[in-house]
Amino acid sequence: MRRYLLMFITLSAALVLASFAAVADPLPSWNEGQAKRAIVDFVKRVTADGGADFVPVAERIAVFDNDGTLWVEKPMYVQLAFALDRVKALAPSHPEWKDKQPFKAALEGDLKAVAAGGEHALLELIMATHAGMTTDAFARVVTDWLATAKHPRFNRPYTDLVYQPMLELLKYLRVNGFKTYIVSGGGIEFMRPWTEKVYGIPPEQVVGSSIKTRFELREGKPVLMRLPEIHFIDDKAGKPVGIHMHIGRRPIAAFGNSDGDLQMIQWTTAGSGARFGLIVHHTDAEREYAYDRKSSVGRLDKALEEGRRQGWTIVDMKQDWKRIFP
Amino acid sequence: MRRYLLMFITLSAALVLASFAAVADPLPSWNEGQAKRAIVDFVKRVTADGGADFVPVAERIAVFDNDGTLWVEKPMYVQLAFALDRVKALAPSHPEWKDKQPFKAALEGDLKAVAAGGEHALLELIMATHAGMTTDAFARVVTDWLATAKHPRFNRPYTDLVYQPMLELLKYLRVNGFKTYIVSGGGIEFMRPWTEKVYGIPPEQVVGSSIKTRFELREGKPVLMRLPEIHFIDDKAGKPVGIHMHIGRRPIAAFGNSDGDLQMIQWTTAGSGARFGLIVHHTDAEREYAYDRKSSVGRLDKALEEGRRQGWTIVDMKQDWKRIFP
Repeated sequence: MRRYLLMFITLSAALVLASFAAVADPLPSWNEGQAKRAIVDFVKRVTADGGADFVPVAERIAVFDNDGTLWVEKPMYVQLAFALDRVKALAPSHPEWKDKQPFKAALEGDLKAVAAGGEHALLELIMATHAGMTTDAFARVVTDWLATAKHPRFNRPYTDLVYQPMLELLKYLRVNGFKTYIVSGGGIEFMRPWTEKVYGIPPEQVVGSSIKTRFELREGKPVLMRLPEIHFIDDKAGKPVGIHMHIGRRPIAAFGNSDGDLQMIQWTTAGSGARFGLIVHHTDAEREYAYDRKSSVGRLDKALEEGRRQGWTIVDMKQDWKRIFP
Repeated sequence: MRRYLLMFITLSAALVLASFAAVADPLPSWNEGQAKRAIVDFVKRVTADGGADFVPVAERIAVFDNDGTLWVEKPMYVQLAFALDRVKALAPSHPEWKDKQPFKAALEGDLKAVAAGGEHALLELIMATHAGMTTDAFARVVTDWLATAKHPRFNRPYTDLVYQPMLELLKYLRVNGFKTYIVSGGGIEFMRPWTEKVYGIPPEQVVGSSIKTRFELREGKPVLMRLPEIHFIDDKAGKPVGIHMHIGRRPIAAFGNSDGDLQMIQWTTAGSGARFGLIVHHTDAEREYAYDRKSSVGRLDKALEEGRRQGWTIVDMKQDWKRIFP
């Protein structure tokens, strides 16, 4: 019985703490306004036991885009910065890259020339830097790179450049019984090594683009080799497909920032019952970037139009967020 | 405070019940023997806080094959019985099937002729019956079929023909903090509509083979259309690939019954720390079937050899299980 007594004491302490937390503002980095009110109102409605909009815990699925929704995506996708650094690191073993595009441009840091090569050039860079090793080796390379790489403008590690208001939102949803997922156009294996630590999102709740892998026995030891071949692109109309493949349930809330998230939010909000769609609109040139209306990276055009038409919540970073980074 | 008092009373009742459960045998349908001892010993070791083999809850991932491991797979895969019934149901809209193989054979119930067509014939049947509709419509078709279809020998619904000892094992693992997954060669969307109710495994913890889907707006409403094209085959060397794709962690325990599960168990048991591999060996012609050594469906040859060599637990259905079905 002594063990149970101890458990009771622990539980009662937890309950007292929980009652304090219920009083404190769960979203302190959000300014009072329409966006914050809409979030809190939605969460209250779906968690109100016996209410018309109540949703059982198992169905409280929330999906988040990553680049530009949870962390910074300018001046370029973090994963592209990673690929460029990898080209430099691997160059000594590839003397032919000095005269071969897009590697030449990558080595010279000539982003415009890389971009001029279009999607094909990007794919070549990704395949040369993301494949040809085991899944375990790739996870280590990602982890090592993130430990030292820094953002060119803010001079901080990329994993520091996550949006504090979104961290609070993730936690607020989880405290209210939501399961939070990432659904990103970025590489699934580029995210999984760090999302749990940074966002509290475990590997099994990360959905993303992927290359193929192959099971092999190497000296009797099973490994998964990463192959230079696309398996799945989790972007635009691919996002609802990825959600269905991985989760098998329709989310009730979706959070994005660009036209790449349009179909994910459409798919989520078209379900029956209470639904929530939100778009992070990058309007803050001073504290972050104001870019999304016309940018090639993270362009927000059709999704903003559709969001306004459908009554999705549009977050104006400059107005709605007290703080950007932790 | 009244609310908290109520919570305390509920919690104390739960604790008393839990203490009874801890005393009761969690695997009552398993005969005492090596297999049962090995399971209980493994669970005790990985959950012993401070012990050498302790595994944190988040890493307690267990993967289960479905056909022949959790439910009956003879005289044919349940999903094939479904496909054959669907061919019959759809035949009025396809008069050409009367003279076209493999549909002709399916309509005549000539299983040998279907089998003679090999993998290509099976794929044709699957595509004709599993694609060309929305994901929601397919889930309804599966649910409706399972509600009425019956097993030819046992004359019971297929969802009754799950193995009671495995249901107890799933529950025992979950009570001990494990997350239980299905990793099946069968269709992911054929399983998800019923695995939660039957096994307590929610849709997001089901991994399987899949066809492609496409996001479409139909009269302004988003749907996912099922396409007659293979996306992924989650069998043999595909199982570790599917596990890595969906879970992103290496399981610590794997449960299978055939050579299709060999690589999944190899991948699982090759990790560091305490690991567990188990094979259900179908030896009971009277209560179920004795077939696996030479069968085309569910053949157990290489995996049994490797299992014996590696010390995986081999369950002899006839000896180890008190009861087969609930």
